[in-house]
Amino acid sequence: MDFKKVSIIGLGLIGSSLARSLKQSGKIETIVGVDNDSFTSSYAIEHGLVDQVINSPDESLYDSDIIVISTHVDSIYKIASGLSVSGNTLVTDVGGVKEKIVNDINSNCRFHYIGSHPIAGSERSGITNSDSDLFAGKICIVTPNRFNKPEDISKIIKFWNIAGSRVIEMEPQTHDRVFAYVSHLPHAVAFSLINTFLDNKDYIQYAGGGLKDFTRIAYSSPDMWTEIFLMNKSYLLEALKYYKESLNELINIVEKDDRNSLKKYLAETVGITSPNLK
Amino acid sequence: MDFKKVSIIGLGLIGSSLARSLKQSGKIETIVGVDNDSFTSSYAIEHGLVDQVINSPDESLYDSDIIVISTHVDSIYKIASGLSVSGNTLVTDVGGVKEKIVNDINSNCRFHYIGSHPIAGSERSGITNSDSDLFAGKICIVTPNRFNKPEDISKIIKFWNIAGSRVIEMEPQTHDRVFAYVSHLPHAVAFSLINTFLDNKDYIQYAGGGLKDFTRIAYSSPDMWTEIFLMNKSYLLEALKYYKESLNELINIVEKDDRNSLKKYLAETVGITSPNLK
Repeated sequence: MDFKKVSIIGLGLIGSSLARSLKQSGKIETIVGVDNDSFTSSYAIEHGLVDQVINSPDESLYDSDIIVISTHVDSIYKIASGLSVSGNTLVTDVGGVKEKIVNDINSNCRFHYIGSHPIAGSERSGITNSDSDLFAGKICIVTPNRFNKPEDISKIIKFWNIAGSRVIEMEPQTHDRVFAYVSHLPHAVAFSLINTFLDNKDYIQYAGGGLKDFTRIAYSSPDMWTEIFLMNKSYLLEALKYYKESLNELINIVEKDDRNSLKKYLAETVGITSPNLK
Repeated sequence: MDFKKVSIIGLGLIGSSLARSLKQSGKIETIVGVDNDSFTSSYAIEHGLVDQVINSPDESLYDSDIIVISTHVDSIYKIASGLSVSGNTLVTDVGGVKEKIVNDINSNCRFHYIGSHPIAGSERSGITNSDSDLFAGKICIVTPNRFNKPEDISKIIKFWNIAGSRVIEMEPQTHDRVFAYVSHLPHAVAFSLINTFLDNKDYIQYAGGGLKDFTRIAYSSPDMWTEIFLMNKSYLLEALKYYKESLNELINIVEKDDRNSLKKYLAETVGITSPNLK
């Protein structure tokens, strides 16, 4: 056994899929699930995703090797600040924004902590959609700092490898800037595109492939994205500023009927999409 | 046999998929393909998609029941104006913009014509990706006018039904406005989003689901979209204006840290996505 006890707080899609893949690895002696939803807790036990389940974090988590806080970003620090854990416990989380969470926890909590962000997800949510392959071959960003012990860094890498992820280390600020562009910006753009149809809902029935892809992206939890956008506000606004420049350039070219510039703009754009479809 | 002779000019993805589905229906006596690419012509004959193939439209098309011009929008009128066909021939096209094409053909060509726009496509292109199910259950817009004979309207409906499409009649102007919103706008938005990464190409490796959906939409022919954007310029610019208002509203809400308005904006948006995912 690689780890004696792993506790996962929050058994939504990410937490329950993590439980499922860790269980399947056979490398964890005991997996404890923490969730206050009774359907979710029963499901986790009945389907063998976890060995034990409790309603809310308590002293039974104290001797965990690893605790994963797998909730929406606005609850992570609140939960972390209530934990009481041993000197051998490493706490992590799966939040899609890192700088604020990492700073809050490092400034105020006394346990060992390294932030994580597994790049995995789905438009589906909840434990009934849990998938042991959710992390397989996907990237997981971890954000250690110079105060972390080398053995904790090795521990978090080993942990995500067991779940199937490839681990990349990043500064929290770098993480938040990169993900403002590759994740939060596309969501903001998709939300605002679909929002354009509030006054023309009947048009949507004629949507082909293009618009349907947008509706899939925009079909996400409003509460979750509210907190992500506000927590990563400055980098998101920076990314939106650059996006608006690209958009205005395209609009100007179309307004001027400038065929050559339009072909150049589209060809340059398509040029950076094709290698990334595989 | 429902039709004696159907001729399809242009055996790209749409034209070749149409040939394949018509062939499979067994309801067309002779299908003639027209394509000047030698690989495409050979492929069409060898795989039994068409009964005859010629390089360019000639007098052998004269007695066709239906001629489908299945090329990029900027070639449709040019090809139509060179056709010499019988009084029993109905000409159609598959262009994604209708008003200009319909006006040009109706003003200058003497044959019977009704515009079509099958809402089918794929990020793949070319005859090797042809699919007899491409139109199955999909909408096909047709744009007859008061000068069209009722029997020609019945004929075009019957034709697209054989290919598997559900036919909807629309005014060319209404078509262009609706498709500016549901097709051309999402493509313009996807192109401009991906264009934002021209200076940050290395970020793309970290893309999860959201950005990858955009790269799929933006992975399209620059030449084709140049002509569509310019041909539908005024409705596209109208749609982009409304989109920018939605985008600016979202940016203002995030700038003001207005959690309640942000939740409301996202919830309203998500509210119109969910019924359309099925």
